[in-house]
Amino acid sequence: MNPEKKDPAAAARGAELASGFTVSLFYDRRMYRQDIAGSIAHVRMLAKQGIVPEADAQGIVDGLRQIEQEIERGDFPWRADLEDIHMNVEARLYEILGDVAGKLHTARSRNDQVATDTRLYAKDVAAQAMAAVRNLQSVVLAVADAHRATVLPGYTHLQRGQPVLLAHHMLAYFEMFERDAARFDAALRSADVLPLGSGALAGVPYDIDREFVARELGFASVGRNSMDAVADRDFVLDFLSAAALCMMHLSRLAEELVIWSSSEFGFVRLGDAYTSGSSIMPQKRNPDFAELVRGRTGRVFGHLTAALTTMKGLPLTYNLDLQEVKEVLFDAEDIVLPSLTAAAGLLETAGFDVDRMRQAAEESDVLATDIADYLVARGLPFREAHIVVSDLTRGAAAAGKRLDGLSLDDYRAASPLFEADVLEINVDSSIAARDMPGGTAPARVEEALADARARLAAGLQDAG
Amino acid sequence: MNPEKKDPAAAARGAELASGFTVSLFYDRRMYRQDIAGSIAHVRMLAKQGIVPEADAQGIVDGLRQIEQEIERGDFPWRADLEDIHMNVEARLYEILGDVAGKLHTARSRNDQVATDTRLYAKDVAAQAMAAVRNLQSVVLAVADAHRATVLPGYTHLQRGQPVLLAHHMLAYFEMFERDAARFDAALRSADVLPLGSGALAGVPYDIDREFVARELGFASVGRNSMDAVADRDFVLDFLSAAALCMMHLSRLAEELVIWSSSEFGFVRLGDAYTSGSSIMPQKRNPDFAELVRGRTGRVFGHLTAALTTMKGLPLTYNLDLQEVKEVLFDAEDIVLPSLTAAAGLLETAGFDVDRMRQAAEESDVLATDIADYLVARGLPFREAHIVVSDLTRGAAAAGKRLDGLSLDDYRAASPLFEADVLEINVDSSIAARDMPGGTAPARVEEALADARARLAAGLQDAG
Amino acid sequence: MNPEKKDPAAAARGAELASGFTVSLFYDRRMYRQDIAGSIAHVRMLAKQGIVPEADAQGIVDGLRQIEQEIERGDFPWRADLEDIHMNVEARLYEILGDVAGKLHTARSRNDQVATDTRLYAKDVAAQAMAAVRNLQSVVLAVADAHRATVLPGYTHLQRGQPVLLAHHMLAYFEMFERDAARFDAALRSADVLPLGSGALAGVPYDIDREFVARELGFASVGRNSMDAVADRDFVLDFLSAAALCMMHLSRLAEELVIWSSSEFGFVRLGDAYTSGSSIMPQKRNPDFAELVRGRTGRVFGHLTAALTTMKGLPLTYNLDLQEVKEVLFDAEDIVLPSLTAAAGLLETAGFDVDRMRQAAEESDVLATDIADYLVARGLPFREAHIVVSDLTRGAAAAGKRLDGLSLDDYRAASPLFEADVLEINVDSSIAARDMPGGTAPARVEEALADARARLAAGLQDAG
Amino acid sequence: MNPEKKDPAAAARGAELASGFTVSLFYDRRMYRQDIAGSIAHVRMLAKQGIVPEADAQGIVDGLRQIEQEIERGDFPWRADLEDIHMNVEARLYEILGDVAGKLHTARSRNDQVATDTRLYAKDVAAQAMAAVRNLQSVVLAVADAHRATVLPGYTHLQRGQPVLLAHHMLAYFEMFERDAARFDAALRSADVLPLGSGALAGVPYDIDREFVARELGFASVGRNSMDAVADRDFVLDFLSAAALCMMHLSRLAEELVIWSSSEFGFVRLGDAYTSGSSIMPQKRNPDFAELVRGRTGRVFGHLTAALTTMKGLPLTYNLDLQEVKEVLFDAEDIVLPSLTAAAGLLETAGFDVDRMRQAAEESDVLATDIADYLVARGLPFREAHIVVSDLTRGAAAAGKRLDGLSLDDYRAASPLFEADVLEINVDSSIAARDMPGGTAPARVEEALADARARLAAGLQDAG
Repeated sequence: MNPEKKDPAAAARGAELASGFTVSLFYDRRMYRQDIAGSIAHVRMLAKQGIVPEADAQGIVDGLRQIEQEIERGDFPWRADLEDIHMNVEARLYEILGDVAGKLHTARSRNDQVATDTRLYAKDVAAQAMAAVRNLQSVVLAVADAHRATVLPGYTHLQRGQPVLLAHHMLAYFEMFERDAARFDAALRSADVLPLGSGALAGVPYDIDREFVARELGFASVGRNSMDAVADRDFVLDFLSAAALCMMHLSRLAEELVIWSSSEFGFVRLGDAYTSGSSIMPQKRNPDFAELVRGRTGRVFGHLTAALTTMKGLPLTYNLDLQEVKEVLFDAEDIVLPSLTAAAGLLETAGFDVDRMRQAAEESDVLATDIADYLVARGLPFREAHIVVSDLTRGAAAAGKRLDGLSLDDYRAASPLFEADVLEINVDSSIAARDMPGGTAPARVEEALADARARLAAGLQDAG
Repeated sequence: MNPEKKDPAAAARGAELASGFTVSLFYDRRMYRQDIAGSIAHVRMLAKQGIVPEADAQGIVDGLRQIEQEIERGDFPWRADLEDIHMNVEARLYEILGDVAGKLHTARSRNDQVATDTRLYAKDVAAQAMAAVRNLQSVVLAVADAHRATVLPGYTHLQRGQPVLLAHHMLAYFEMFERDAARFDAALRSADVLPLGSGALAGVPYDIDREFVARELGFASVGRNSMDAVADRDFVLDFLSAAALCMMHLSRLAEELVIWSSSEFGFVRLGDAYTSGSSIMPQKRNPDFAELVRGRTGRVFGHLTAALTTMKGLPLTYNLDLQEVKEVLFDAEDIVLPSLTAAAGLLETAGFDVDRMRQAAEESDVLATDIADYLVARGLPFREAHIVVSDLTRGAAAAGKRLDGLSLDDYRAASPLFEADVLEINVDSSIAARDMPGGTAPARVEEALADARARLAAGLQDAG
Repeated sequence: MNPEKKDPAAAARGAELASGFTVSLFYDRRMYRQDIAGSIAHVRMLAKQGIVPEADAQGIVDGLRQIEQEIERGDFPWRADLEDIHMNVEARLYEILGDVAGKLHTARSRNDQVATDTRLYAKDVAAQAMAAVRNLQSVVLAVADAHRATVLPGYTHLQRGQPVLLAHHMLAYFEMFERDAARFDAALRSADVLPLGSGALAGVPYDIDREFVARELGFASVGRNSMDAVADRDFVLDFLSAAALCMMHLSRLAEELVIWSSSEFGFVRLGDAYTSGSSIMPQKRNPDFAELVRGRTGRVFGHLTAALTTMKGLPLTYNLDLQEVKEVLFDAEDIVLPSLTAAAGLLETAGFDVDRMRQAAEESDVLATDIADYLVARGLPFREAHIVVSDLTRGAAAAGKRLDGLSLDDYRAASPLFEADVLEINVDSSIAARDMPGGTAPARVEEALADARARLAAGLQDAG
Repeated sequence: MNPEKKDPAAAARGAELASGFTVSLFYDRRMYRQDIAGSIAHVRMLAKQGIVPEADAQGIVDGLRQIEQEIERGDFPWRADLEDIHMNVEARLYEILGDVAGKLHTARSRNDQVATDTRLYAKDVAAQAMAAVRNLQSVVLAVADAHRATVLPGYTHLQRGQPVLLAHHMLAYFEMFERDAARFDAALRSADVLPLGSGALAGVPYDIDREFVARELGFASVGRNSMDAVADRDFVLDFLSAAALCMMHLSRLAEELVIWSSSEFGFVRLGDAYTSGSSIMPQKRNPDFAELVRGRTGRVFGHLTAALTTMKGLPLTYNLDLQEVKEVLFDAEDIVLPSLTAAAGLLETAGFDVDRMRQAAEESDVLATDIADYLVARGLPFREAHIVVSDLTRGAAAAGKRLDGLSLDDYRAASPLFEADVLEINVDSSIAARDMPGGTAPARVEEALADARARLAAGLQDAG
């Protein structure tokens, strides 16, 4: 064997680098509460099972409580050379208690400890995300409620399609966020399994009581396989997937707010606190918050990619690569939670220009479908009716007109099925006609609002 | 207004390009069954509601059945110029029925039709994925069952850690796949909502019966908001997330099989059908299937990235970008389903070298933890015990030995707590000692096997 | 050793699966020309070096030529059971020539053969991409040329900022595509290194002439390290990175065309061949091509993610995972090349509404910066001037006016530095004032057009 | 118009949120040096051109220098409420100078200022990455140099393939890093274009001298189009692509070090500073650094995904989404630079077990190709020879032997072409036979080492 090279300079560089490259303290210390709670539950169990004397356990619990207070008061002596939150807590415990501190790590490994901390943390983040979604939904509902009579064009392909109520448009977002809440809930349940007791990988040779620890920490169940328990980070990926979809939804809302607040659309005026001026163009009201929500969406997608890629192809069980997955979780947390709050604020303070919206609906050909359906009601197969109205629309455009500028004669020239009442079709009658479950007719929207309110109340109750 | 330029050459190029760029037929025709089923349910509802005469509806149903048979017989006249499956079916229906075919599209839009077809398709793919996962789990269980007494080193950081049973190792994969099955189930339920009836975006001005259509097509519920219904592809993303995690798990298994089948490990000999020779190196047995499963994992991650990115920032409601999400679903399907089958085949035909595995466990220092725990049981705090054994291990290594080569004197020189029975610690006693829920002790693994068998049976029953 | 299980059913399933899972023929046969060219160059070299008799080599060349013709005529007997293009060609060569065909694989491995084929293919795709970029640039230039006097608002944050010439706006895209051309060129050069001769991984034990083969195949140089040569797919990643950035640029153009063709903006009317109607809304002109370009962007990002992830963490040298990278290259090719052509067609046939654009610039506060600069020219520090004009803008808005509706008195009330000539500031003077390198002043845009034309000509010459 | 809702509570929440959501100071202050350098060059140019009085300019330069010193001394009064580095510097300048500070922003916008700062920063990071790559290459060369006689099996599919020199294996990495250096250089050149002078988007109405500013700041050229200049972040994406590929290469090296340091391979013992123990398993030497390099690779891929996705579909010109791209650059920097250093340290301190490597090569069938080539040299077509040796290998395996355990009779039974000298084939003769450009023969490796040394020296000179 080639002896390890003892080039002192290289060794020094290595030592210096080592003091930085593997340090995770600067980000994992946000898990201090979870780490301490996990240790307290563990040592209580050790005492209950007679593995550690009760007095030692109590001393350790007291020491850990003291450490928690030191951290929260801001006078904990953080040491980067100890690399992570776990060693910082443990080393301080030694300072406080002496050798008895060493009993805490009985029947435990860093592997199951980290997994436990991360799961506690992920549960908390998922719960916060759910609460933020619920808050956003309540704002969406309030906007919908205030705009039960506001008419705007519904768009496909960013082309005006058919008139809808703004309340109906808003309720589409309610549905998206309802699914997001369910996904965050699933992510929470995915994390809700206790790994502690799995040891390094094979379990521990002590008569431990895992159900007790699970109850103390509020876990719904106990991990079934020790190797899986230390090798698994699915629960982070579940959170990241939920976060990615939620950000995707927020990015659609943000895009609409950006487009709607352009001079050309002019559908919305964003709140002052959510826009900014320009350093050079004095007239500007830039939709900063909407743009940042949209832009940060890409970063959460990137974090999902990162975590999946990091996990790919790792042999069992624990590998240090998993440390990176934890950091990704924190990065995503720092985007998703504020973005949900920002979106709520954006909607809460947005002023919708209801006249301009209605005008956009009226000064357009959004009634073309209704006119085709008029012919269908009079016996023409839909495809034929569609052709008649397409020709009408094109003809009107060629004459510089829209459908609502055509006379009855124009209509009858296209099809003898048209009668005077075709001229009575308007955006209100069009909306009223979509009177089926899920449609934009006012009565249906009222039902949908009531239903949404009820579901939100139930969701809030579950969370509460 | 600048008149649209009428450069004939450009127009011709445009026309030619148009005949290719927007064509989706070559991939979306795999949804023909869903498209026809959706149309049949729709037209039956139209007849039931008196929107289309019963006779016309029956004619349309018969025509659609004929088309389905033509497709399945392989003599359907596909036309790329009609761009997609929907127009191909509709145009053929006109050929068969004449103008009455035009009634099929009453109270329906391409937007809600495509959403319906895609959801039916996604449900089917998710169900197939679940079945493939269940099959893989049954193979995992069979391997575990056959190796309840096979000992190998459990690894962390690809370093030998502690001895475990191969059954225990296999059951870690059972747990991963159990979560995958739950995710595919959630994806199925995410898709299980009927969009038909939402029209282009606002609903339809007909007295339709959406519950009837949902029942006919086997959807669990009806979409609550028409704009969301046509703008939403969350259900595809849910499938892709599930698929990405599942492939990640498969990539870990594949990586282990690649490593284990190296000459250096020699833990497994893969089945002939799952390896290949080399075009130049006559001695090679390359783990082709395992490598492809691992390599294709990256592609599914890419498909998830693609679909998320495609959806990002799209204003409501339908935009043609959504077409790409459908293609991504198909691409992922073509990787995930065969990969699950390949993984099952790989395990089914793998020959494990149980002697070599046991030897790897025995000829190593995997008992170090047990020796530390021995000291703990005699009163030393765990951290102290850990230091004693670390020093012992290092000392042994310096002397060219392993822990199992040390004498009682060596042990006692390190700590007076050691007594003769320390020499009785071996891989079997180590495994037996991990006798807690989730541990690798034989009795616990028996329980876990029984539990897994029961869960798999329940899972298969649900699927059945 | 556990004997390999000989469960016949499992073996049969394995065999059946094997016939599909590892088959790459359905996508790699598009490399047939490269495969044949590579083989011809190789066998000519073998003959030149006396490794294979000249007559045998000539027979092999003739056989390969015959195969190429069979493929191009469409009567090549493809066999999926032979899995890939390489074995199909080789097996057919045996049919034609008998055992002498076996001499072709002398001093060659599948590993260096595949790498060579893929590099030849990647070079070709990169060259095509460059040509398509150059074509698109020429269309961009033509639009810019036609719109040297067209005024529109330049936007930041989708808010009107300052007036610009449409030519200037178009030239921004010219610059983006200029960088894309350079990236595709770099990708081509990255692929332009011959791997053949590297054998399986270590080189070959024959006196080969790699420079000769490189010249025959048009490679710029010969790979320096055999292990790197068979393990490396950087050149595909370079192409994918270039493609991802190029698609990102196209997505920005597509987004602008979608927004500009909305009723609200009304800046552009897309060509008929590049829009489509709706199945239900007769009035619609949906920007299909622009949406597909935008939507497919996500897929190319996904392919880049896929290829990177697939390569991550592979030990040297060749692993079958690399096969997937090849498929990703094809997938990306099928998106990027048509998207570039589609973008050119979109611009070529787009009709810009120059009156509406000018109106949008004039009916707005886009001159606010100029008014601030007016004050700066009269001695106010810029930041002060900015505040004065911000207040003016806000005051005007509160009074329902824009800056161009203010009187000289209004201006002077805000600052005594204003004089009558402030009323002469208009969009044309604003544009004319940006008279510095890179600015939108007409003279600068003329220079930029000339410069762009010259660079494009040089680029086309290089490509030619 | 619906008046903007003036709910005071919502406004307060908005204000509070606003104080966090848009703040970029905590990450963009690392660009302070670039921001100040850019401002100094800008104001000097303003003075030179007579736009700002010389004395004012000198005062501003002095003020900026003072600020730089304050920051570097650590006593700069950072204010998060000012959101970013630019406003912090500017506000402090006002404190120091009073209103004259307002002249600095003449003929400049935040948009071209940020672009300039980011490009200066990106150039610096790219240069550092190149230097780190060069350093790593020099370590790779040193290892190769020390192991010109070390034999190990070259692997494909993680199966032993053919024997190679460790120097040859190491030189494969040298080639990868050589390409990385070229990519970082291209990224640097991509950033090396001055945007300042582009104003908000259209240019500025002042007689500025952009070439002067470019020279002051060390930019190679001046941006050609003002709209592109403020909308473009390609240079960040170029850096991220280069970083992603470089990390991919590092991940392959890391994977090999992890596998090689397993007990089963035992090819390498990593330096103490680059491994760590286990909290529970006293015998462990975990390859922490290699795992972190591998794991962080996923994060850089994620950052590339993030930046591409963030840019996708943004209309021209500047949108606030671009702010996120800057943060992604910093995140990637913090991974790539330390990872390159870590990889150098890993190799520098690694001890290779040359005996075990040679043994692995000798105790295997890696000579099978050579034996096939032996037959080819005696006239058999390669494919026939391949079949003969495959049969020999299989037959030997069935008899529990390897090829090197066969007798001449065994060989001759397989083919009469074998003669006594077949038994002389060994790993050394095999390596020596690969005597062609790029092959592993010792003489070729010597040439390659000399060539690599020369290229590295040239690279270092360029960088220097």
